Amino acid sequence: MTSDLISFARGAPSLDIVDIDGLKAAADAALTTDPGGATGYGTAIGYPPLRKFLAEKHGVAEEQVLVTNGSMQADAFLFDELVEPGRAVVVERPTYDRTLLGLRQRGADVRAVTLDTDGIDTEELAALLESGVRPTFAHVIPNFQNPAGYTLSAAKRARLVELAEAHDFIVFEDDPYVQIRFAGEPLPTMLELDGGRGRVVYASSFSKTVAPGVRVGYLVGPADLIARIRVRATNTYISPNMLAQAIVYRFCVDGGLERSVATVNAALRERADVLCDALAKHIPDARFTKPDGGYFMWVELPDGVNVGELLTAAEQRGVTFVKGTDFLLDGGESTLRMAYSGVRTDQIEEGVARIADALGSLRVSAG
Amino acid sequence: MTSDLISFARGAPSLDIVDIDGLKAAADAALTTDPGGATGYGTAIGYPPLRKFLAEKHGVAEEQVLVTNGSMQADAFLFDELVEPGRAVVVERPTYDRTLLGLRQRGADVRAVTLDTDGIDTEELAALLESGVRPTFAHVIPNFQNPAGYTLSAAKRARLVELAEAHDFIVFEDDPYVQIRFAGEPLPTMLELDGGRGRVVYASSFSKTVAPGVRVGYLVGPADLIARIRVRATNTYISPNMLAQAIVYRFCVDGGLERSVATVNAALRERADVLCDALAKHIPDARFTKPDGGYFMWVELPDGVNVGELLTAAEQRGVTFVKGTDFLLDGGESTLRMAYSGVRTDQIEEGVARIADALGSLRVSAG
Repeated sequence: MTSDLISFARGAPSLDIVDIDGLKAAADAALTTDPGGATGYGTAIGYPPLRKFLAEKHGVAEEQVLVTNGSMQADAFLFDELVEPGRAVVVERPTYDRTLLGLRQRGADVRAVTLDTDGIDTEELAALLESGVRPTFAHVIPNFQNPAGYTLSAAKRARLVELAEAHDFIVFEDDPYVQIRFAGEPLPTMLELDGGRGRVVYASSFSKTVAPGVRVGYLVGPADLIARIRVRATNTYISPNMLAQAIVYRFCVDGGLERSVATVNAALRERADVLCDALAKHIPDARFTKPDGGYFMWVELPDGVNVGELLTAAEQRGVTFVKGTDFLLDGGESTLRMAYSGVRTDQIEEGVARIADALGSLRVSAG
Repeated sequence: MTSDLISFARGAPSLDIVDIDGLKAAADAALTTDPGGATGYGTAIGYPPLRKFLAEKHGVAEEQVLVTNGSMQADAFLFDELVEPGRAVVVERPTYDRTLLGLRQRGADVRAVTLDTDGIDTEELAALLESGVRPTFAHVIPNFQNPAGYTLSAAKRARLVELAEAHDFIVFEDDPYVQIRFAGEPLPTMLELDGGRGRVVYASSFSKTVAPGVRVGYLVGPADLIARIRVRATNTYISPNMLAQAIVYRFCVDGGLERSVATVNAALRERADVLCDALAKHIPDARFTKPDGGYFMWVELPDGVNVGELLTAAEQRGVTFVKGTDFLLDGGESTLRMAYSGVRTDQIEEGVARIADALGSLRVSAG
């Protein structure tokens, strides 16, 4: 075991791209300008100025926004509200492992639709709908998807909203990475494309733009659905973290957010470049699509590579990643998710070289 | 309607007894001394130094502690883990309204046992157990109970632990007010009396000692139960608020907690004194027990007073409280909960005078 583990496993930023001084200033400002709001109970809708800020950002009424303790808590409330045991829910194939777990634990009939490099295969979904499957909702991560890093095209966004309207389901647009774009042009959200018809529930987070430890996420959706989820939130925790939300609010309005996003995106652009170059050099038969943003890249190795064996061999060499099989109901035995968010540039080539060495050891032992 | 509403309704501290400067210093210190821990994801057990601090405080292993987003979230996890639909759970009569709601929503067969001024009637509970009722757990708020303000005597604490051992149930010791003692001597927790036999699950919070908006609570219990709840917590939100927990930790270890408790207790002692004096003066037929700590006092008015009508008349006069009926499955029509935590001393007599006037108006209209 090499002592300095290089981890491509966890979707988290390295500390050097978190604005600690900005957070200190925001904490001081939050407690100075609104001591009562930052330290009182508040209500389950979240810190009111942050809720208002988010409503304005998305062009919706405040009653359509609920700020939560991280966006996974928002997902959990939404799933508790919407999932009906035995009824279909559509996900991307592959998708975020915790989403799969949350849906299966609630008894959803999980239907996985192929994810292409330009997003979910909307015609495969259309055929599924035509066949009579009536999903409660379709969970889609539109930008720099976790685990694949792919982005949903503008045309497919419009098509998804059209399908939701025609077949009476909700699009759950799970969008934590939207601001982490370091190449290409931003695309409209499906929330925007829906134009207030109430077919889209949108979730995002400050984990990637401020820091994960602030645990601030949010939901945007139809006011009646948000009101029902507010009751759930009240009964679960009275109110989410007012202190952290007040700090995030000050960070946003005092310019920290813009600076932080610039820092993060510059760093991640470089890390993605270095990772792609290193893979091309050390594992030339690996297939991948260079992402336009986000934390992750999906890497396909030649058929016959067993990713479980590869991970064991890689960890013996001081490098780790997540097996692709974790993000699928079945299949994916030769795939892996590589997170470049938490790895310094100077570690990336060494990490890839170690994976290449691990891969070579499997091929030797199989040969 | 009088313009300046005086509220005896909400169990929350007034802003003048929250140590805002201490929180600013703690935020700066947390981000300076442990920037990675305060801003990273962490895990569902909570901020590790705070968990360790709490384990040492209670004399238990770290594996027995889970730090949550407020203690109501801890209750919710515990109820999800333990409540079985249709099976009995014992509560105090009266008890915290959100506890009643959480238990009923999960289908518990709620059995309310009389709360005396020295705590739950353990012999009534013993008789219930002897009659064959087999509760999963008994929920008890031992110190300065919400809503009554009463404290469980040392003898009854020992008796409860003995009953739990004899009848194979858990005592859920819900103890958020323990440090808010301004009269009398501290009593041992049932967690201590249990001596590691695993019959007691203990919950507390920093809402009353630091501030509610930090949303930091915790559970202490048998390691296997805590491990199961950790899985629930991971699946719900990955990790609780690391930033807020790191701030609370620094606040505790840098002396803020001790200072804050002294400030709060001095203020609340005075408020409770003023409230009792005002009640004796303006509503001489009100019955109550002066509390030794906490936020609340239970006030019984003569039979025949309808507390719903009284609340309406009181709110017309610019004063509010919570009806006693909210804390009971049935009965309590002439009772109310008065919270003195959020009311400045100079408002208390005026508020009680307004309630007395409201009461007089009911008596006149009935006469």
